[in-house]
Amino acid sequence: MSTADRLIDATSELLWERGYTGTSPKAIQRLAGAGQGSMYHHFAGKQDLALAAIRRTAEQMRSAAEADLAGPGTAVERIERYLLRERDALRGCPVGRLTQDPDIVASAELRAPVDELFDWLRARLTSVVEQGRAAGEFEASLDPAAVGAAVAAAVQGGYVLARAAGSAEPFEQAVRGAVSLIRAARS
Amino acid sequence: MSTADRLIDATSELLWERGYTGTSPKAIQRLAGAGQGSMYHHFAGKQDLALAAIRRTAEQMRSAAEADLAGPGTAVERIERYLLRERDALRGCPVGRLTQDPDIVASAELRAPVDELFDWLRARLTSVVEQGRAAGEFEASLDPAAVGAAVAAAVQGGYVLARAAGSAEPFEQAVRGAVSLIRAARS
Repeated sequence: MSTADRLIDATSELLWERGYTGTSPKAIQRLAGAGQGSMYHHFAGKQDLALAAIRRTAEQMRSAAEADLAGPGTAVERIERYLLRERDALRGCPVGRLTQDPDIVASAELRAPVDELFDWLRARLTSVVEQGRAAGEFEASLDPAAVGAAVAAAVQGGYVLARAAGSAEPFEQAVRGAVSLIRAARS
Repeated sequence: MSTADRLIDATSELLWERGYTGTSPKAIQRLAGAGQGSMYHHFAGKQDLALAAIRRTAEQMRSAAEADLAGPGTAVERIERYLLRERDALRGCPVGRLTQDPDIVASAELRAPVDELFDWLRARLTSVVEQGRAAGEFEASLDPAAVGAAVAAAVQGGYVLARAAGSAEPFEQAVRGAVSLIRAARS
């Protein structure tokens, strides 16, 4: 792994565990096993590194969601696969939790990749619901954009409930509840 | 308003805006217009104040949810009232976002009131779904605990989507989507 890659991975890890303010250039260098000169050779500074880390994590989340949603099956099956994928509920979503980080939300540049990921995710889920509706799986009255957003919210809100409880159980319940409601919406 | 109350309100405000680590005793005193001696006369320190602030905010959230859920109407109407209550989507949930604050989650004492609130909320939503099921509003096969968790998650996840987008729209979509799925689950 290149030094730049190690620096990006270390930044992802620290952003996840400590938030932007709690992540110092020194801690990044220590975790990556890289010197200060090397860090500033590859990146302009902490914000530049954070941007690279958020972009990489968002890209991984996007690929995982696309694998669930583009796979075989009916719209309901594809949404179920997305909802029921195994996740580390207590760690939470590495991108979603950045929305609660005051420094990320205050920076248009750092928020941009977070915005793009969730925008893409809602649009992707919306298109699956639309396909299901066109195929007669769902009632014609169902609003695909609203249902798409509700599915994305079930996962993100499930993380919030799990972290509040210090247990994965509320996450499992929330996604199972979303699955049963999606099934109930079949025409 | 008493000095103790002003200190608690200032702490709530700062916890919401800056998180636990970003909230200094100095900033609390400044915002409350209270001196250091006065703060330490009423509270043992920052953690003690944060605990009082989290408990007060949780109590306010609980009252608001109870007002929606205990009011008149069918189970579906009561859940809709909870989901569609006007909220400041971009500010996010003052208690839910604490679950993304590493210092809150790491402290058993500070996490306790967050845990209790969401535990209560899921149980309360579950009981409304159970009542609806008993009254024949929902299919007997619907799992009340799962649906209760999914409803709580729709609101919490809606906040995450709104803050990612820098717009209230995804929140509105997520709660409308949850409402349409709950309606679809009626027997």
